[in-house]
Amino acid sequence: MLFHVRMNVNLPQSMPPEQAAQLKQTEKDLAQRLQGEGKWRHLWRIAGQYANVSVFDVASADELHTLLTSLPLFPYMQIDVMPLCRHPSSVRDDDY
Amino acid sequence: MLFHVRMNVNLPQSMPPEQAAQLKQTEKDLAQRLQGEGKWRHLWRIAGQYANVSVFDVASADELHTLLTSLPLFPYMQIDVMPLCRHPSSVRDDDY
Amino acid sequence: MLFHVRMNVNLPQSMPPEQAAQLKQTEKDLAQRLQGEGKWRHLWRIAGQYANVSVFDVASADELHTLLTSLPLFPYMQIDVMPLCRHPSSVRDDDY
Amino acid sequence: MLFHVRMNVNLPQSMPPEQAAQLKQTEKDLAQRLQGEGKWRHLWRIAGQYANVSVFDVASADELHTLLTSLPLFPYMQIDVMPLCRHPSSVRDDDY
Amino acid sequence: MLFHVRMNVNLPQSMPPEQAAQLKQTEKDLAQRLQGEGKWRHLWRIAGQYANVSVFDVASADELHTLLTSLPLFPYMQIDVMPLCRHPSSVRDDDY
Amino acid sequence: MLFHVRMNVNLPQSMPPEQAAQLKQTEKDLAQRLQGEGKWRHLWRIAGQYANVSVFDVASADELHTLLTSLPLFPYMQIDVMPLCRHPSSVRDDDY
Amino acid sequence: MLFHVRMNVNLPQSMPPEQAAQLKQTEKDLAQRLQGEGKWRHLWRIAGQYANVSVFDVASADELHTLLTSLPLFPYMQIDVMPLCRHPSSVRDDDY
Amino acid sequence: MLFHVRMNVNLPQSMPPEQAAQLKQTEKDLAQRLQGEGKWRHLWRIAGQYANVSVFDVASADELHTLLTSLPLFPYMQIDVMPLCRHPSSVRDDDY
Amino acid sequence: MLFHVRMNVNLPQSMPPEQAAQLKQTEKDLAQRLQGEGKWRHLWRIAGQYANVSVFDVASADELHTLLTSLPLFPYMQIDVMPLCRHPSSVRDDDY
Amino acid sequence: MLFHVRMNVNLPQSMPPEQAAQLKQTEKDLAQRLQGEGKWRHLWRIAGQYANVSVFDVASADELHTLLTSLPLFPYMQIDVMPLCRHPSSVRDDDY
Repeated sequence: MLFHVRMNVNLPQSMPPEQAAQLKQTEKDLAQRLQGEGKWRHLWRIAGQYANVSVFDVASADELHTLLTSLPLFPYMQIDVMPLCRHPSSVRDDDY
Repeated sequence: MLFHVRMNVNLPQSMPPEQAAQLKQTEKDLAQRLQGEGKWRHLWRIAGQYANVSVFDVASADELHTLLTSLPLFPYMQIDVMPLCRHPSSVRDDDY
Repeated sequence: MLFHVRMNVNLPQSMPPEQAAQLKQTEKDLAQRLQGEGKWRHLWRIAGQYANVSVFDVASADELHTLLTSLPLFPYMQIDVMPLCRHPSSVRDDDY
Repeated sequence: MLFHVRMNVNLPQSMPPEQAAQLKQTEKDLAQRLQGEGKWRHLWRIAGQYANVSVFDVASADELHTLLTSLPLFPYMQIDVMPLCRHPSSVRDDDY
Repeated sequence: MLFHVRMNVNLPQSMPPEQAAQLKQTEKDLAQRLQGEGKWRHLWRIAGQYANVSVFDVASADELHTLLTSLPLFPYMQIDVMPLCRHPSSVRDDDY
Repeated sequence: MLFHVRMNVNLPQSMPPEQAAQLKQTEKDLAQRLQGEGKWRHLWRIAGQYANVSVFDVASADELHTLLTSLPLFPYMQIDVMPLCRHPSSVRDDDY
Repeated sequence: MLFHVRMNVNLPQSMPPEQAAQLKQTEKDLAQRLQGEGKWRHLWRIAGQYANVSVFDVASADELHTLLTSLPLFPYMQIDVMPLCRHPSSVRDDDY
Repeated sequence: MLFHVRMNVNLPQSMPPEQAAQLKQTEKDLAQRLQGEGKWRHLWRIAGQYANVSVFDVASADELHTLLTSLPLFPYMQIDVMPLCRHPSSVRDDDY
Repeated sequence: MLFHVRMNVNLPQSMPPEQAAQLKQTEKDLAQRLQGEGKWRHLWRIAGQYANVSVFDVASADELHTLLTSLPLFPYMQIDVMPLCRHPSSVRDDDY
Repeated sequence: MLFHVRMNVNLPQSMPPEQAAQLKQTEKDLAQRLQGEGKWRHLWRIAGQYANVSVFDVASADELHTLLTSLPLFPYMQIDVMPLCRHPSSVRDDDY
């Protein structure tokens, strides 16, 4: 099941650079692992913003919530979720 | 180059059903042709809304505008566009 | 899987009363059937508004979309959907 | 009498983890006691957010306010309240 | 139990003046009867707007909804409801 | 002359509890004195929020501003003011 | 007493030009009479919009409401009102 | 040339009172000098808010910007600017 | 003097196509004449929208208002205006 | 390819003046270099705000993102991006 997720990141300016770098590296590792597992299907940067648009493919909203709250940057993100359906005009076999 | 496009459709309630059906069929044909050509890369329905989230792969903003304004439903849609970049954590070779 | 759905109804003032009455009756019949089937788990009126808050229990976002778009009042409603999860502090066995 | 309550939690990032854990545990205990008493009828997590949607069953707005302001997380929450009515199409005997 | 209600009226410009005058007179009669019964406790005009701020004293949200939807102008109003409580600093015996 | 005033209070979380308690007590004393003098005609708590809805009866906007800025919590409040008029359907002799 | 008033005009596109011209002329005559009487103290056009910013000098909110609702364009305007006070740094003797 | 300017002031609660008093006094001196020079034509307090509505009469947007950014409170203000024109119904010779 | 102007066009769907085509042609002719005279300095289409971003170079807000209201599409546009200044980091001699 | 970019700057009030001055100087140097290279085509100050409107001419959204995130003030800015197209009524050869 697909969910459209937008994440806006807002790190506090008082965070030490090493801590920020560490958080981002852990986030990246986890993001890549979840992509490898097929859970995090798409991940794009929005031009000019510290934000991304993603598509997750999970079994349920509970699984989505567990994944999102496991992200190291979760406490610093504003997240919006929209459930997606197959579009009747879509020709891609895997876009649902 | 990738653009994230959200389209909200709002057909006037006074439109005759045959006209609406005709518009939607022409829209579908064009959407499928553009998907076939690789211009309209993703197309998802947003659950509960007469709206979609799409990703276009075009050469420029001018080409995007030409495609969007050629859609039969264009006069009845509110459209929001966000330019996308490759995300540094993405593992997909084609998501940019 | 649970979805929180808010529906705001806005019938055009030009709709003949019999047509409105007919639509509402068909809507009510379908709403009650879906409640009987356990798909439409909760349905409350928001005080002072022609609007409701509902909780649906469906297998997927696709099933939710199919149900919502089958409602006779769908063309006259603004609908907002939020996927729900089990809350770690909940004591109800069936609230997920 | 039923009230629809949405709570968005926003703990300050400077709060020591033990204090946060303590607050959450006390909150959970109270939430479960109020559910056991039938005052807090439903409690769902909104996917991807540190937020919940709840339904309270209380005698009055005063009782609701007393309950909500007694929550340990109250100083850290934004709360929106909507009074609910029985919906004429509802088939559940207890959804009001 | 007290509810703060704001009503914004928006009559369609196509409504014949006699019909508008009739609606307003019936609305006024009902408003005055409900005030006489103590249900509609306060009624003020907001300066410069075809809108009012009211305070209702009713037994429940269901009674409030029944009253509001019985108003002849209900189909032409946007209504916002906030449940009120006694304020701990209030000195009026009847403001709750 | 009547003004509808909504006050949302937002005390900084770093304020020492004794200072907060002191501020609230001084606020309460002043609020009760102004109610006794008839300047602060109504004062209600909004359910679930650290906020109130009030009606002031003052000679002018200048007097209103002087009263509001004299409140100990003024630096911590967001305040919205709407001038009220007698409503033509009101039956209360003193609601203007 | 001074009120800051913003008026946004929105004439229906179906209004016959002569009716619009007539309404505007009557509005202008009344606006100039009220300026002559000192009630409508300032009147400016907002660049690029069919809208104005005005300052009224009236005895009360009731008088303001009576003036505004007597304007021929009142049914076609969205109006926002803010009560003004003398500013402690103002050097003009008549700006209050 | 006239500009309508709204300034909302938001001093940080951590600012020492003497520093705030000093800033306000310097701001007042400058505001009064600019009024004396005819640059700052009107200055009103908005009732209930630490905010003002002003009208500036300057040669250009550049001069306006230079004046506004020279205000001691500029770093603590949110400022909205609207260019004003002479209104065709205005009877004042100097309101443009 | 430069003004940043955003125009969103919204032609009524009931307008006959010939009337729309005529309006657009007259608009285009005037837009090109004003560009030729140097008044309308820049004109860009916003991708995916029937909207433009423009920069006008005029002597005053009055001249801007006269130009904008002379556009044939003015009654069908929502227009937002922001006065621009020379930026201290700009290296272009003519961007002010 | 052209992008319309609005940047709102919000430096924390706790930043030491020398650090702020340093940041601004580095920002200015980079802005002027990018203008010299033709990447940052226009740069205007919005009157009364610590904000600018810019037009960038870059090869792709990726290049735009790289440029914007390289700005020393990037962590302190809110940035909105809109892709621009050539307008069919434009007479300038280089506005696309």
